[in-house]
Amino acid sequence: MFGWTGNILRVDLSNGTVKKEPLNLQDAKMYLGARGVATKIYMNEVDPNVDPLSAENKLIFMTGPLTGTFAASSGRYEVVTKAPLTGTIGASNSGGHFGPELKFAGFDGIIFEGKSEIPVYLYINDDKVELKSAEHLWGNNVFETTDEVLKETSMDARVACIGPAGEKGVLFATVMNDKHRAAGRSGLGAVMGSKKLKAIAVTGSNSVKVAKPKEFLESCIDARNKLKAHPVTSTGLPTYGTQILINILNESGALPTRNWRDGGYFEHAEETSGETLTEKYLVRNKGCFGCSIGCGRVTRIPEGKFKSFGEGPEYESGWSYGANCGVRDLAAISKANFICNELGVDPITMGCTIACAMELSERGILSKDEIGRTLKFGDAEAIVELTEMTGKREGFGDKLAQGSYRLAASFGYPELSMSVKRQEMPAYDGRGVQGMGLAYATSNRGGCHVRGYLTSPEILGVPQKLDPLVTTDKAQWLKIFQDLTAVVDSAGVCLFTTFALGLPEYSAMLRSALGWDIPDEEILKIGERIWNLERLFNIDAGFSKADDTLPPRLLEEPMPSGPAKGKVVELQEMLIEYYQVRGWDENGIPTDEKIEELSLR
Amino acid sequence: MFGWTGNILRVDLSNGTVKKEPLNLQDAKMYLGARGVATKIYMNEVDPNVDPLSAENKLIFMTGPLTGTFAASSGRYEVVTKAPLTGTIGASNSGGHFGPELKFAGFDGIIFEGKSEIPVYLYINDDKVELKSAEHLWGNNVFETTDEVLKETSMDARVACIGPAGEKGVLFATVMNDKHRAAGRSGLGAVMGSKKLKAIAVTGSNSVKVAKPKEFLESCIDARNKLKAHPVTSTGLPTYGTQILINILNESGALPTRNWRDGGYFEHAEETSGETLTEKYLVRNKGCFGCSIGCGRVTRIPEGKFKSFGEGPEYESGWSYGANCGVRDLAAISKANFICNELGVDPITMGCTIACAMELSERGILSKDEIGRTLKFGDAEAIVELTEMTGKREGFGDKLAQGSYRLAASFGYPELSMSVKRQEMPAYDGRGVQGMGLAYATSNRGGCHVRGYLTSPEILGVPQKLDPLVTTDKAQWLKIFQDLTAVVDSAGVCLFTTFALGLPEYSAMLRSALGWDIPDEEILKIGERIWNLERLFNIDAGFSKADDTLPPRLLEEPMPSGPAKGKVVELQEMLIEYYQVRGWDENGIPTDEKIEELSLR
Repeated sequence: MFGWTGNILRVDLSNGTVKKEPLNLQDAKMYLGARGVATKIYMNEVDPNVDPLSAENKLIFMTGPLTGTFAASSGRYEVVTKAPLTGTIGASNSGGHFGPELKFAGFDGIIFEGKSEIPVYLYINDDKVELKSAEHLWGNNVFETTDEVLKETSMDARVACIGPAGEKGVLFATVMNDKHRAAGRSGLGAVMGSKKLKAIAVTGSNSVKVAKPKEFLESCIDARNKLKAHPVTSTGLPTYGTQILINILNESGALPTRNWRDGGYFEHAEETSGETLTEKYLVRNKGCFGCSIGCGRVTRIPEGKFKSFGEGPEYESGWSYGANCGVRDLAAISKANFICNELGVDPITMGCTIACAMELSERGILSKDEIGRTLKFGDAEAIVELTEMTGKREGFGDKLAQGSYRLAASFGYPELSMSVKRQEMPAYDGRGVQGMGLAYATSNRGGCHVRGYLTSPEILGVPQKLDPLVTTDKAQWLKIFQDLTAVVDSAGVCLFTTFALGLPEYSAMLRSALGWDIPDEEILKIGERIWNLERLFNIDAGFSKADDTLPPRLLEEPMPSGPAKGKVVELQEMLIEYYQVRGWDENGIPTDEKIEELSLR
Repeated sequence: MFGWTGNILRVDLSNGTVKKEPLNLQDAKMYLGARGVATKIYMNEVDPNVDPLSAENKLIFMTGPLTGTFAASSGRYEVVTKAPLTGTIGASNSGGHFGPELKFAGFDGIIFEGKSEIPVYLYINDDKVELKSAEHLWGNNVFETTDEVLKETSMDARVACIGPAGEKGVLFATVMNDKHRAAGRSGLGAVMGSKKLKAIAVTGSNSVKVAKPKEFLESCIDARNKLKAHPVTSTGLPTYGTQILINILNESGALPTRNWRDGGYFEHAEETSGETLTEKYLVRNKGCFGCSIGCGRVTRIPEGKFKSFGEGPEYESGWSYGANCGVRDLAAISKANFICNELGVDPITMGCTIACAMELSERGILSKDEIGRTLKFGDAEAIVELTEMTGKREGFGDKLAQGSYRLAASFGYPELSMSVKRQEMPAYDGRGVQGMGLAYATSNRGGCHVRGYLTSPEILGVPQKLDPLVTTDKAQWLKIFQDLTAVVDSAGVCLFTTFALGLPEYSAMLRSALGWDIPDEEILKIGERIWNLERLFNIDAGFSKADDTLPPRLLEEPMPSGPAKGKVVELQEMLIEYYQVRGWDENGIPTDEKIEELSLR
């Protein structure tokens, strides 16, 4: 078999059995791998109305056909399940080395079902697969767990695990792998915790085979050369990390500030920027498996009350704890982000939930007694303390562990949660980047920037510059970005390669790896199929057109200043066009024709 | 302090004491760091006629001022002592993460003196430094030792250690760090073994400070951009590793074949090339600390009798076991190289010593009984078996453990050892690359390619193309290359950056890191000072003009075929010119004027 290994592991945690099954090749051809194939398997096997934290839910880890190959930045895998935070399909992608190692062990993916009585971890050493007790690991943080599992299994293994947050059902708990990499959004770590699955360790001794080695190598080299030549992937990301965006978005007037209350300009942005991080705290940059970009940050705060060492922050956490909490202290921001990695918490939702609590507190809705401390925008110590308390679900952290939507709603102010489908939106204010507004509203996993990253054309001018303030053509652009992203995610390659690569490059790698003989358009069609499949899950799970929306703040409150001054997100006009472009009916439901065209049912 | 930490650790293994001492800033200014400073300290403290394996010898690990900074590929450190293989100054450079971590712990270097009664290892955790028993580790290979030391100290530590070869005094034993990186040449691992020092583990929590952070960052970014733009460092080395040179040197007629007996063309070179390695066995490329090149190879032989997994081979080992042993089986070559890393053996000297034994055997000088097996050029199994036996010093491996010079000399045929000053020459036949012939003859540690890599201009045309077959100007070029290399090594940056960078780039980084205000030429002068210092050591240790020579094969046997057909190395004319260019007398001794000019005594 080429690209795929052809094997899936099925682990029943309720009765402790492990089975090797063949990958369904029809699924693989239609849905490629990772996000696509895992979603297809999930939908075949699980009731869309399942309680995400129940034993009836399943949790799928899946790689793509390019994962672990010479394709640039091919260290990716996907975790798929119904998401506790949103109730939508949950699909979170992560890099590092865990995904490739799973393929080297001979498996494309793992399906976990049921629920264990006692904490366990799975150890895969090629064909030797065993569930081991994790009772002694329960309560340990991500780093402790990883180290201990490595000592107990193989020092050459790669480990994915949860921290205390996943164990305790924090609704935005992450699955962490290789210590610092995260399948980060929508709370998939809480599903892992609900199954009492603490970790997965894997070590393998096989190779990933490709159909046409010479052609594949050539296509990979072509792609790598383009990554080395493009300023974003050759200099911007390696030198400054994703945090390079802080100043750029701030200058564009689209850096959401103080729970999006104060518009898109943070007066202290420079102090929290990638440039400042590199100059003051960066130890080195770091790449995942097969990566020539190396956006990862190894960071040290060498002194002071936030003295610490870890990886990050990247742009999203730098913003969620920084501008969005009004905090200008980069040491505190970094430390809070490190704690997220340690305890297994999504720093986007975490920072945004704290920002929401800050606004609730400043408005007098949340009292000092309820929080256990005063809480105002700009409080650097608060972001560190509250993150720690949330990851451990202590004190007020127990309330924050529900995310901003449930927090704000419990006080009667759901509109103060800056979320879509209960998931917090990332660091691009749709009033200043209209296409991103549409992307948030239509993302299949709620507020999310990595499902159709229109910031790339709207702000960075890649692959071409679009005016961020107009709505024209944004629906068409978004459809292409969403579909291509589904291809890239499902292939097992990092989304950051899309700054330098496009459909022709991914298609060339896939064709030679898989021995396929289909045109580029057919490959993009796979992405469209995956997108529609996810949409169908959400519809079956009870979501409707009414959920394709944004917080009132973005729809009704004009941007107070900056280049986007006076703007709201013109969502309705874009949404109508988007449904049309998608071939969906006016209620956002894929038409029978579209479903047939995509062979979806 | 900027660049340097300002602290040196002195460990007396005889009485088990550890002392913190200040770095001599005068030495640091004059000799920069790493190779330069360590050699200066060594010469201040040790008799040049010391027996390298005696308790009176000292062993110095030293970083440079750029080690562990944002300077590209700044993961380097140097091990300095008198070399067991050559009797010259021994200085071997290694990458990975060990060097930077030593600086993070707050030390520029470590001086080991004396000899322990029992096997020990040193554990440095910032200011907490302790010697621990390594009795349970003695006999373990490099990977086992590293894993065990990590488990016993900190999973975040970085480890340098020796394998069985270093313990047993194999004269070309390596010091290994981060499992796969080697201070590889001249047998410095045997010195470590003689002191019963099995390993050093270090973990640190400090940062390396630079004098002018903004300027330093700018100079680093400029250098990184140049590395990303140059074809060798942006595509050649990342994609194919150093093995990309196999086909290039073969086509140039300068790939030494079958113990240099059959000229510079190996008919099976393509099968052992970097292109073949990448296509058949490469898992991914890998970089050291802060490296954007990533020449490292993670390689898997997925099946067959040489099934294995490891790092490498790089060009030198690909050649020493390949063309030089007449072996065309890349799986066997890779496996033999993996064993070198595992047991702590220099694969250049190892492969070349086997090649020498093959010639001795084919000539009937060595018998089957003495070897324990038949031995002919092209025997793939032999290179694997004999490497294993040598690393463990078993059977005939005990003889091979002396290197090719002592082996051939013991049978009365020293001229069949393709070595200079008893160290085997690397993979460039001086008859086809005249400047490299001069480089070998004058290298301060014997046969060596990383003291003045004229292959770069002579074959690769970097920074400009020189005719490899003429001798004109080679002495001048070599001096500059030798001096600049001493600067780069002593700064703590990888030599491979010199494909894209030159004196102005290194000078800019050093000036801003150290707060220096001196011109480029003064920085190059430091390199010249280091070169002359090393020369003075060798003279004091008994070396003379007579040792600045090459094996008779290169001086008397004309190249049999290819572009260099009929050529020998025109050493004498180049050597006379070289001494003049160096400001040395006709016997190769630095004149009083030169010594004064360089403030050497």
